[in-house]
Amino acid sequence: MKPIITAFEHSPDRGRGLARDMRVRWALEEAGVAYDVRLVSFAAMKEPAHRALHPFAQIPTYEEGDLVLFESGAIILHIAQHHAGLLPGDANARARAIAWMFAAVNTVEPPVLDLQVAKFAEGDKPWAAERMPLVRERIRERLRDLSARLGDADWLDGAFSAGDLLMIGMLMRVKPSGLLDEFPNLAAYLARGESRPAFQRAFAAQLAVFTAHA
Amino acid sequence: MKPIITAFEHSPDRGRGLARDMRVRWALEEAGVAYDVRLVSFAAMKEPAHRALHPFAQIPTYEEGDLVLFESGAIILHIAQHHAGLLPGDANARARAIAWMFAAVNTVEPPVLDLQVAKFAEGDKPWAAERMPLVRERIRERLRDLSARLGDADWLDGAFSAGDLLMIGMLMRVKPSGLLDEFPNLAAYLARGESRPAFQRAFAAQLAVFTAHA
Repeated sequence: MKPIITAFEHSPDRGRGLARDMRVRWALEEAGVAYDVRLVSFAAMKEPAHRALHPFAQIPTYEEGDLVLFESGAIILHIAQHHAGLLPGDANARARAIAWMFAAVNTVEPPVLDLQVAKFAEGDKPWAAERMPLVRERIRERLRDLSARLGDADWLDGAFSAGDLLMIGMLMRVKPSGLLDEFPNLAAYLARGESRPAFQRAFAAQLAVFTAHA
Repeated sequence: MKPIITAFEHSPDRGRGLARDMRVRWALEEAGVAYDVRLVSFAAMKEPAHRALHPFAQIPTYEEGDLVLFESGAIILHIAQHHAGLLPGDANARARAIAWMFAAVNTVEPPVLDLQVAKFAEGDKPWAAERMPLVRERIRERLRDLSARLGDADWLDGAFSAGDLLMIGMLMRVKPSGLLDEFPNLAAYLARGESRPAFQRAFAAQLAVFTAHA
């Protein structure tokens, strides 16, 4: 049964792969799962029909027969549990890969989201310039720890996993800030993720949506 | 094999159950798993021995034989996958409960963390008073959606699950802000969680640590 995901009709990131459907597309590509996409406008996203799929009126959602899921982390975990390629077979290694998934969304992403807020929601506020270094320092703190743990390994814990996928998705959002320049091993880790064929297919697919609607 | 978790020796929340070991203790109590606790000081948390367990130098961690985990969400999912009481048996319902776990940590928690930052890290900044209503409004937006979805149900999706556990853990952190007063069904949902015997055992255990070290 071909799953259906939702994505922005007009992504505010202009096809740079920063919207959260990118992570889910990438996971589907890694797992070799064909999928369909239903595009939603900002207006339609707030309507009851979409809210029935996503209580917080966001994208992506995931429909597979009777199953409806929201939250990119949960969707990716679901895909990873049903297909090879995203989680190790060994039970302990699997639990650790899932720990990296949560670390990406709950420890590293909050300060990164705060940077988005500082730029896009509070960029015109009188405190914007003075507050920005504090926001950046909180991201730097996480990156410092992440960089120390990664060291010169290719991936966070053994083979590439859904934990790397989500963490690299985070780093894509960090990249425009320039903060990755301070952590060459994280910049290389991001590049390593972006060079995966599955990433490239997913990236091209989301970019094609932007190009077609531009 | 009795798992060992770590918790603050001196919790900055003064035993109000807002530190993240509370969620893990609650999950272990729901699952009927006996556990040991190793207390760590703020200084010890930054040392290599603790960083080997937790790359971001935080609590809680979880040790069970050879397995070492960090991230409360991942620890709770691990417990839920190995014991009854935290996830439904039906595969689709299970995936949806996990979606609520991610919603709690990745959609609802970031603005709640931002409120902590606004109060404790930026409370003395010149913009503190003017910025606070914006921070509160971003939490309110999430609570509005959560309240609409919960309606008059007892739990988010059928029986109590690890999704409710993490969401109620979030709402405990929201409560001091007064924002829950605007959403009576969420206040009742929080109270329903807090009245569970497993919650009460976990709460008493973490409070006892604070009392003993006070």
